[in-house]
Amino acid sequence: MRDTASPQTVPDRLDSIAKRLCDRTGPTSSTSAGHPHMMPSLIELKNIIDTLRSVLFPGYFNTRPFHEFSLFHHIASDIDAVYGRLTDQIWRGFHFACAENGTTPPSVEESGRLALALLDKLPEIRRKLTADAQACYEGDPAATSPGEAVFCYPSMYAMTHHRIAHELYVLGVPLIPRIIAEMAHSHTGIDIHPGASIGNAFFIDHATGVVIGETCIIGDNCRIYQGVTLGALSFPKNEDGSLVKGIPRHPILKDNVTVYAGATILGRITIGRGAVIGGNVWITEDVPDGKKVTQKI
Amino acid sequence: MRDTASPQTVPDRLDSIAKRLCDRTGPTSSTSAGHPHMMPSLIELKNIIDTLRSVLFPGYFNTRPFHEFSLFHHIASDIDAVYGRLTDQIWRGFHFACAENGTTPPSVEESGRLALALLDKLPEIRRKLTADAQACYEGDPAATSPGEAVFCYPSMYAMTHHRIAHELYVLGVPLIPRIIAEMAHSHTGIDIHPGASIGNAFFIDHATGVVIGETCIIGDNCRIYQGVTLGALSFPKNEDGSLVKGIPRHPILKDNVTVYAGATILGRITIGRGAVIGGNVWITEDVPDGKKVTQKI
Amino acid sequence: MRDTASPQTVPDRLDSIAKRLCDRTGPTSSTSAGHPHMMPSLIELKNIIDTLRSVLFPGYFNTRPFHEFSLFHHIASDIDAVYGRLTDQIWRGFHFACAENGTTPPSVEESGRLALALLDKLPEIRRKLTADAQACYEGDPAATSPGEAVFCYPSMYAMTHHRIAHELYVLGVPLIPRIIAEMAHSHTGIDIHPGASIGNAFFIDHATGVVIGETCIIGDNCRIYQGVTLGALSFPKNEDGSLVKGIPRHPILKDNVTVYAGATILGRITIGRGAVIGGNVWITEDVPDGKKVTQKI
Amino acid sequence: MRDTASPQTVPDRLDSIAKRLCDRTGPTSSTSAGHPHMMPSLIELKNIIDTLRSVLFPGYFNTRPFHEFSLFHHIASDIDAVYGRLTDQIWRGFHFACAENGTTPPSVEESGRLALALLDKLPEIRRKLTADAQACYEGDPAATSPGEAVFCYPSMYAMTHHRIAHELYVLGVPLIPRIIAEMAHSHTGIDIHPGASIGNAFFIDHATGVVIGETCIIGDNCRIYQGVTLGALSFPKNEDGSLVKGIPRHPILKDNVTVYAGATILGRITIGRGAVIGGNVWITEDVPDGKKVTQKI
Amino acid sequence: MRDTASPQTVPDRLDSIAKRLCDRTGPTSSTSAGHPHMMPSLIELKNIIDTLRSVLFPGYFNTRPFHEFSLFHHIASDIDAVYGRLTDQIWRGFHFACAENGTTPPSVEESGRLALALLDKLPEIRRKLTADAQACYEGDPAATSPGEAVFCYPSMYAMTHHRIAHELYVLGVPLIPRIIAEMAHSHTGIDIHPGASIGNAFFIDHATGVVIGETCIIGDNCRIYQGVTLGALSFPKNEDGSLVKGIPRHPILKDNVTVYAGATILGRITIGRGAVIGGNVWITEDVPDGKKVTQKI
Amino acid sequence: MRDTASPQTVPDRLDSIAKRLCDRTGPTSSTSAGHPHMMPSLIELKNIIDTLRSVLFPGYFNTRPFHEFSLFHHIASDIDAVYGRLTDQIWRGFHFACAENGTTPPSVEESGRLALALLDKLPEIRRKLTADAQACYEGDPAATSPGEAVFCYPSMYAMTHHRIAHELYVLGVPLIPRIIAEMAHSHTGIDIHPGASIGNAFFIDHATGVVIGETCIIGDNCRIYQGVTLGALSFPKNEDGSLVKGIPRHPILKDNVTVYAGATILGRITIGRGAVIGGNVWITEDVPDGKKVTQKI
Repeated sequence: MRDTASPQTVPDRLDSIAKRLCDRTGPTSSTSAGHPHMMPSLIELKNIIDTLRSVLFPGYFNTRPFHEFSLFHHIASDIDAVYGRLTDQIWRGFHFACAENGTTPPSVEESGRLALALLDKLPEIRRKLTADAQACYEGDPAATSPGEAVFCYPSMYAMTHHRIAHELYVLGVPLIPRIIAEMAHSHTGIDIHPGASIGNAFFIDHATGVVIGETCIIGDNCRIYQGVTLGALSFPKNEDGSLVKGIPRHPILKDNVTVYAGATILGRITIGRGAVIGGNVWITEDVPDGKKVTQKI
Repeated sequence: MRDTASPQTVPDRLDSIAKRLCDRTGPTSSTSAGHPHMMPSLIELKNIIDTLRSVLFPGYFNTRPFHEFSLFHHIASDIDAVYGRLTDQIWRGFHFACAENGTTPPSVEESGRLALALLDKLPEIRRKLTADAQACYEGDPAATSPGEAVFCYPSMYAMTHHRIAHELYVLGVPLIPRIIAEMAHSHTGIDIHPGASIGNAFFIDHATGVVIGETCIIGDNCRIYQGVTLGALSFPKNEDGSLVKGIPRHPILKDNVTVYAGATILGRITIGRGAVIGGNVWITEDVPDGKKVTQKI
Repeated sequence: MRDTASPQTVPDRLDSIAKRLCDRTGPTSSTSAGHPHMMPSLIELKNIIDTLRSVLFPGYFNTRPFHEFSLFHHIASDIDAVYGRLTDQIWRGFHFACAENGTTPPSVEESGRLALALLDKLPEIRRKLTADAQACYEGDPAATSPGEAVFCYPSMYAMTHHRIAHELYVLGVPLIPRIIAEMAHSHTGIDIHPGASIGNAFFIDHATGVVIGETCIIGDNCRIYQGVTLGALSFPKNEDGSLVKGIPRHPILKDNVTVYAGATILGRITIGRGAVIGGNVWITEDVPDGKKVTQKI
Repeated sequence: MRDTASPQTVPDRLDSIAKRLCDRTGPTSSTSAGHPHMMPSLIELKNIIDTLRSVLFPGYFNTRPFHEFSLFHHIASDIDAVYGRLTDQIWRGFHFACAENGTTPPSVEESGRLALALLDKLPEIRRKLTADAQACYEGDPAATSPGEAVFCYPSMYAMTHHRIAHELYVLGVPLIPRIIAEMAHSHTGIDIHPGASIGNAFFIDHATGVVIGETCIIGDNCRIYQGVTLGALSFPKNEDGSLVKGIPRHPILKDNVTVYAGATILGRITIGRGAVIGGNVWITEDVPDGKKVTQKI
Repeated sequence: MRDTASPQTVPDRLDSIAKRLCDRTGPTSSTSAGHPHMMPSLIELKNIIDTLRSVLFPGYFNTRPFHEFSLFHHIASDIDAVYGRLTDQIWRGFHFACAENGTTPPSVEESGRLALALLDKLPEIRRKLTADAQACYEGDPAATSPGEAVFCYPSMYAMTHHRIAHELYVLGVPLIPRIIAEMAHSHTGIDIHPGASIGNAFFIDHATGVVIGETCIIGDNCRIYQGVTLGALSFPKNEDGSLVKGIPRHPILKDNVTVYAGATILGRITIGRGAVIGGNVWITEDVPDGKKVTQKI
Repeated sequence: MRDTASPQTVPDRLDSIAKRLCDRTGPTSSTSAGHPHMMPSLIELKNIIDTLRSVLFPGYFNTRPFHEFSLFHHIASDIDAVYGRLTDQIWRGFHFACAENGTTPPSVEESGRLALALLDKLPEIRRKLTADAQACYEGDPAATSPGEAVFCYPSMYAMTHHRIAHELYVLGVPLIPRIIAEMAHSHTGIDIHPGASIGNAFFIDHATGVVIGETCIIGDNCRIYQGVTLGALSFPKNEDGSLVKGIPRHPILKDNVTVYAGATILGRITIGRGAVIGGNVWITEDVPDGKKVTQKI
């Protein structure tokens, strides 16, 4: 009937669509940002991480030429620029989070203090990443040098993001660590929650599909392969039926653990020192030190 | 012998290479586009989807500042621009498809009608995506707000693409929905065929490696994890040995189904309402309502 | 105590951070590039591969308009430009590798010879990619034409990178093939080591999470699905405990093999002609011709 | 002697240069900006003016497609975006000016009020620019339509900038009007000070080298040619020898005045209604209505 | 009264501004383009001219590397791309002009024929520009080589634009030649109307402020300096008071004429072979062969 | 006749055009660059000058945020980057010049020495530019502060380029100084040959059309206006008829000289200390100290 009566014209229909999209009452209200002019910027955050990557690995990713003898000035000016930019993004992260949960955001000065605290961790982050690169080289028969790992291994890309995001997470910065982690997830297929604590000399081979949950604790010299999940087994709920957030629910891997491709380790269990978890194995209970668990075929 | 005789010079060799690359007779003919000046543009399609994303989630992804009171004008002008651009891409999609199968492409007017029909679905798409964001928040203990999910969860990124691509698929637009889906696949590791029908409040946690096939039907409030496959079990062939295309061959998930990481569900089977499929489980037969299927260890 | 004494100012702290980041003695030395001004460029390599993609598939990915009758000139000028750019990148790859292992890099002329040798393989690469596109179409019930596969299938994207990277690997070019492979890995979730040898008409459906190791040999008409690993089973070590590099350690797939999603095939074993490996199956021993291996549920 | 003793190394010399450049004591202090993070942005201002140009002349300079029936929404969203951006730039202009002269800058709200006041003048500015385009067409035998003047005449480019800059000047906005004027000066060779008051239907043919001073008053329907100067004759000084700023010192042109190429008119004199000043003529005294002044050869 | 009653809010005022800007009735109608989606593109035209510049002067302005032996392919592919792009721009130029004057635009095929006719003139244009470069070198004591003139002399920049624009003008293409000329005018301060006919070996020293009118005819080996005007003396009007368009009204310069800085030559007069016009001289009558005209001081 | 016989097809005609454009025999040979891969880059030179501008005027033109206390590191890293880039461009300038005149280019080391020598002059250049900014402020009644002059006065833009280009000219660097000067010429309409020697506190008001020749010598505290030419009167020729290059042929201005708009001063004459040259005046002979020369009307 409608078609034969008075069909809407194109302008009328576009107008009607826009009007309906502007109706932000009811259940769709959460899809509009509260403070659009204070949103964190994905472009700025990418700039910040890319700058930090070139600072951590001088010579690999720099966008302008430098001479060895001026390296200090390049690094000093880079971290000065990051200091300003990261302060702003942290401040925006707080505004976003506070708008979502109705609290008062901290001051810009506090954001600056947190940005500086992150920068203060960079030398230590670099020390860990150097060990990670060495672990890539030693753990992959196809690797020809630690430098190759720095230059193009997804494990190094993801760990650079993670070690930065984790420090921000520990400092209590909201949202920003998660965005940094998702950038690496999109690029590498490795999904490490910023809350995860990861020791020295960590190597993820082939990368795609790895998931490392928020409360994981991983020791030194561990190695995992593609498709490994270090996840939660169950999700306790509050009395109102909502999930309990933040409780320890992911595995602990002691030092020197190896987890082969596709293995799934779930719950707050402990994989003992030097244990080896075979490919595609499904683990929901503690594994003693040195134990080798393989699939029952 | 050849080396001692008359070695080819560099120009001669480059010339020979180019000549051989231009020889488009024989089996390589399909690698040349029939209408190069009518090909869809990946850049245009990215622009279209990015604009729609900022329209669906005002304040999150906008590239220019706006004031709350002018939101209607921004949305109205954005969808007007998309109307023009999408019409052109749909028209190009038809040209591509028709060149491939030798039929006659519809008119530009028909393409415009289809673009408008997609835009008309946007309010409904937004309603569904709002429920998806809420499902992310409620389903992930690490999530701090629905807004965080909108801003950086791969599930939301993929579902935004899918809900747009699916409407175009239903409208009969060729190629374009698939390109939109592959953009999300590349970004998130989630491969949802545009043909799949997905209900309200859908959440994919950790994202990487999920595959949802063309004829899947998924109910409301379902949740799946990384590495889940909802695929086909077998591929019936025509008498000439070619695959039968388009027949229902992927699973049906009723409402409130949860599928844990790495599970594989294959064939036109039905997973009953409220069923829970454990991690890494392999399913090729119907699962009754409320059933919990876990791996036999 | 420190807080009550003389707290550092912001400039002092930034200065201290930069100094510590510049200290390149000790274990962190490997994170600084030896020849920063001779590093390969990710941007240049992307430009090279994108140009080659448009040369291999005229009309699909071209960034400027062309007429059919001028195709030869476009291709000839494109490969001429690639010849210069690739020569430079190969030369940089050698410098990087030689700085890492202390040898003397070959001359620019030798790099040019290798770049030309790669270009000489392009017609053959195109022939193979044409068969790959046809395999996509024939193997995926959701595919509507080989052209659609060329335009947006991750399998085609990854195989274009691989077939180029593999030829460079065979020619002995260091680092560059690996970077090219990682570009595709990041984009598609398919991780094919450049060393892998892959026959005609190869198709990877759904793509994400596939791993194909360095010494794999794959015959004609094979098809694999998402999450398949063709990997190594064990890593023999040298007397000093370091991994033995370069030995054959990955599977051989004869012609017409199909490997379904999530299957894991490890070690230097042979999967016989026409064999079918079921989803999620774990294989570490030879499989005879024509055998169908399925998961024991 | 110095060369034979201890010649400086390159790092030492660069270090010394940077130190000397950082020494901002003494006469060079004015070359450092007081509030570097509050400086106006040339890129933002270009964006603002380009957006206003597309708003004033719909269809000529738009960067995205629009449909006639949606023009209102495009214009409304464009001026909303300019409202935000211009407010910010005006606020920065005040900060710059106040840092230079030691006063207190107005609030952001006041900057917003001024931005809105400028936007309120746009319809009137458009009316005047329409008359300017008609004057170009009627005054240039080589012009084929008013639209051609809009699209590519330097006179129209400069007058668009001027009519915007002049309103900002009248509103008391510092610095910003001058930057907008210099953008047009650089592009066209026409140097109109934002303070100049210019009537309807103004046309500058050939453009290059025209100078119109700060306190000029130009009536309706005037036309001038390349190289014309409407300047000051003398610069009265204060008792301390500094220039007296801001006093009327440039010519008044009544309606319908024509000034041919290269003529120089200096001082607070009046050129009468309908007067014609010949090419290269030098004028420092009033010219009566209707008078034709030509060069004495 | 209004201020005390109900002051408009910001949204109301923006809305009112947009409404007034959308009112395109009355005298402002000419400021809206008739066919916004068919407007010529300044970006495309810049691309076309930049490509032609690199074709005319191989090695100076190329944006991608080439080898001497592949020059033919680069040039052939460049002009093929220009052929397509220029055809489109010419077609748009016709649409613009016909919308302005109410006539019917020619077909795309005719636009293609004209684009090809322009390309056919390129070898002759290159021959003339080569002589122009030699004239720069011979005429400027500060020039060190013809190549320096090609690389950075404004005279060469302007003449490259002019010789292309003039051929399009002769072919009857509307608007496009004028836009090309204005690009050079903006860049160099040299305003040459595309209609002007200019002989071999032409050199403009210092460039800024030169004006050469539509119907000028300039012989071989002429040289002019900054600020020279070759203009019209009077503008005959039609009975209705409008200007007569298109009649010869600018000077003729025979071969070997030199015009020094700031000279003004007006009207359809002839400057004889080998004549020299002194700086700042004002000429409105014929000058015989070989005559030297200097300023009477 | 030709049309009826065998008209060329479009491909044939494009092919013929490309062939004729490739024919580089005969008089057109100078339009092809000898060493296309060693040409200076306009983009690199713009980057270099823009970086130096931000170094000379901290806070005005910086593209990334900085803190006052880190200024030294920003400046030190900026000049380190310029040192590398400028060395390369100087080396390319020598290659260009030597290819043109058949001599042997100096080494890269020599180019580096010259780049360093330029950087060593930066503090002195900054001192002079500071005085120039002060002169703008004191000489223009419309100027509101020296900072405004730095930010947007064409005189400051041109003098920044000139003071850099002049030092390179004095150091004997070919081509590069001229390119730097032409960048400013295009942007401001001020054409200062890099050879000109200009004293402290120089101000050019209104800018457009000013020409300052290669061998000019200008004292301190001079001020000139738009359209002023400081040029050569005659061009002595060698016995073979070619111009004598490099001899002093432009004016000397002593300290405190003012030259008003459009004045022309030609030949190796001296304008005495404190002299004032009126607008449009034509001078070819010495002017004594303190003399005021005005136009005879």
